[in-house]
Amino acid sequence: MRAAIFRKGELVVDTIADPVPATGQVLVKTLCCGICGSDLHVAKHTRQFVDVANRAGRRWVMDPDHDVVFGHEFCCEVVEHGPDTAKRLKPGTLVCSIPLTVRGETAQGIGYSNEVAGGFAQFMPLAEWLLLEVPNGLPADRAALTEPFAVGWHAVQHARLTPEDVSLVIGCGPVGIAVIAGLSIKNVHPIIAADFSPARRALALRMGADIVVDPAEVSPYQSWHAAATPEGYDGSRYAQLVGHGPKQRPAVIFECVGVPGIIQQIMDGAPAWARIIVVGVCMEVDRFEPFFGIAKQLNLQFVLGYTAEEFAQSLHHIAEGKIDSAPLITGHVGLDGVKGAFAELANPERHAKIMVDPWR
Amino acid sequence: MRAAIFRKGELVVDTIADPVPATGQVLVKTLCCGICGSDLHVAKHTRQFVDVANRAGRRWVMDPDHDVVFGHEFCCEVVEHGPDTAKRLKPGTLVCSIPLTVRGETAQGIGYSNEVAGGFAQFMPLAEWLLLEVPNGLPADRAALTEPFAVGWHAVQHARLTPEDVSLVIGCGPVGIAVIAGLSIKNVHPIIAADFSPARRALALRMGADIVVDPAEVSPYQSWHAAATPEGYDGSRYAQLVGHGPKQRPAVIFECVGVPGIIQQIMDGAPAWARIIVVGVCMEVDRFEPFFGIAKQLNLQFVLGYTAEEFAQSLHHIAEGKIDSAPLITGHVGLDGVKGAFAELANPERHAKIMVDPWR
Repeated sequence: MRAAIFRKGELVVDTIADPVPATGQVLVKTLCCGICGSDLHVAKHTRQFVDVANRAGRRWVMDPDHDVVFGHEFCCEVVEHGPDTAKRLKPGTLVCSIPLTVRGETAQGIGYSNEVAGGFAQFMPLAEWLLLEVPNGLPADRAALTEPFAVGWHAVQHARLTPEDVSLVIGCGPVGIAVIAGLSIKNVHPIIAADFSPARRALALRMGADIVVDPAEVSPYQSWHAAATPEGYDGSRYAQLVGHGPKQRPAVIFECVGVPGIIQQIMDGAPAWARIIVVGVCMEVDRFEPFFGIAKQLNLQFVLGYTAEEFAQSLHHIAEGKIDSAPLITGHVGLDGVKGAFAELANPERHAKIMVDPWR
Repeated sequence: MRAAIFRKGELVVDTIADPVPATGQVLVKTLCCGICGSDLHVAKHTRQFVDVANRAGRRWVMDPDHDVVFGHEFCCEVVEHGPDTAKRLKPGTLVCSIPLTVRGETAQGIGYSNEVAGGFAQFMPLAEWLLLEVPNGLPADRAALTEPFAVGWHAVQHARLTPEDVSLVIGCGPVGIAVIAGLSIKNVHPIIAADFSPARRALALRMGADIVVDPAEVSPYQSWHAAATPEGYDGSRYAQLVGHGPKQRPAVIFECVGVPGIIQQIMDGAPAWARIIVVGVCMEVDRFEPFFGIAKQLNLQFVLGYTAEEFAQSLHHIAEGKIDSAPLITGHVGLDGVKGAFAELANPERHAKIMVDPWR
């Protein structure tokens, strides 16, 4: 089969062996696979990623000296069932799966693995028991958004939201957009979103943000303050005296940028008692001042991925039209276009999510 | 009146004007006031404290170019009522108060203020409505522990404890000891406590820790793991496959050290999904790797101080014998001994809490 391979730091298209479905596996044909910000980061800072992933105790850390086929946001078509499968889905059925397969008793991650090629290859061996049938005739490229939207849904699920909360989303790339979609499904308003890019702010509004802010013009924290503070004071005497100030609705701030310095910037701008959900993936050493967290009694919840249940819910959100996923897709490429797409994704005005079709 | 004054970076004993109780205030005689780790830090790193406190938006930040009288862990005796007071407590009554007073419509912090002398002075003007009568004939030095124990109680209240949790307390100075006391009142066991000092480990056991660890000998995280993992596996198939490992009881880790590097050290050692309660007060810039938080989906709750209700509960915990507070007090000094006590507190084998009696 053909695949876009990450080989010695370069993306090349080459032919590799077709996978053979093992016990419990189903061979699928990859129809569509999104390019994730993590793919860009891992391609650019490979050693750093491998180092921190190993030290942080992650499983399935790739060896960058050997070939890796990226791609963990995919929609596929059932081709052939391996041994000991229930064959519950007919060949031709469209399916999604969390990016994980099982071979015998061993689980293997998909997307940053030397052993299993990811979605930038024409075929994959998926675990039958993890396959989700794509409902409602949803097109493959939209179904492939299940994974990134599951990331946002998981973040929102971990935010311990109450109807009182006023949310602030910092960064409106695909992660921030998925968080906005999740907040919109939860129906907790207002949702304030900040990004330097006009295109991304427009997308944020379309996906459910109520207020968008250009941080070059207005402080996102001032916007939050204005939205969260009703007119007139309602604090108790004690609260006013010790400086809690006017009664404000609680703050939930989603960090969807993932670069060094952003956590301290949020801790600096956040109001007291804010819950900060760290969804952006910063793989570098960062600096912060714990006293800002202490003085404001902040809460930092780091999140990653999703549960199998959240993943399935995400597919249904898209299929049932609870998320208008189409605007997120800004391009389609074949395998030969993967390298160029990695470069183009640097421009936030042109792109949000580019889809790879390995058969194009 | 006499006071131990922090003047141009030095602790000196001098005579200053007696305070005059304003509207709503009561003049009290300070019987006893504990020396806090924050006092030591502020005396040593004054400019750094003032800088970070200002930038983090704290109120009542002292001007280090003018005199300050420290002391915010006090027990006092009512002397005289100011104008417009209800006079509900007779002269001679023992009282505690959160370290905050009110003059007219203005609240003023006590302990790091240029305007109100703290507990290392012979008299203070306290707000009548914040006074708590010391019950059960509790001696003044024990009642003065209300403040540090309230800090631990507040941290425990913010830990969202469940009966399943296994707690790990990193650092057994007065803050860690107060956390252990709070956990012990909550009756959530086992409580594991780590400190390099044999004397502090012994104190931790006496205050309610079930297991103590010398980090020079055994990893506190391994001790936690052993205590939190019952024999045999009980994870679901999915949980085992994706690496959640054996079913473990949830981890709550209390950071009670407050130096740079300790938060990353805990993020490194913590199991997945741990809640980390940051009670130690680090005023310096710190380094950490967000990816450790992300990979393990950690939660960091920063805490500070206590509510008025938690403070009152803390006094009752001590007065009703729920906390055996006596072992925490390792010395008593007069105002002339304050400077020496600041130096002696560096030795964890000799001291936990030294009490200042301004009339001694």
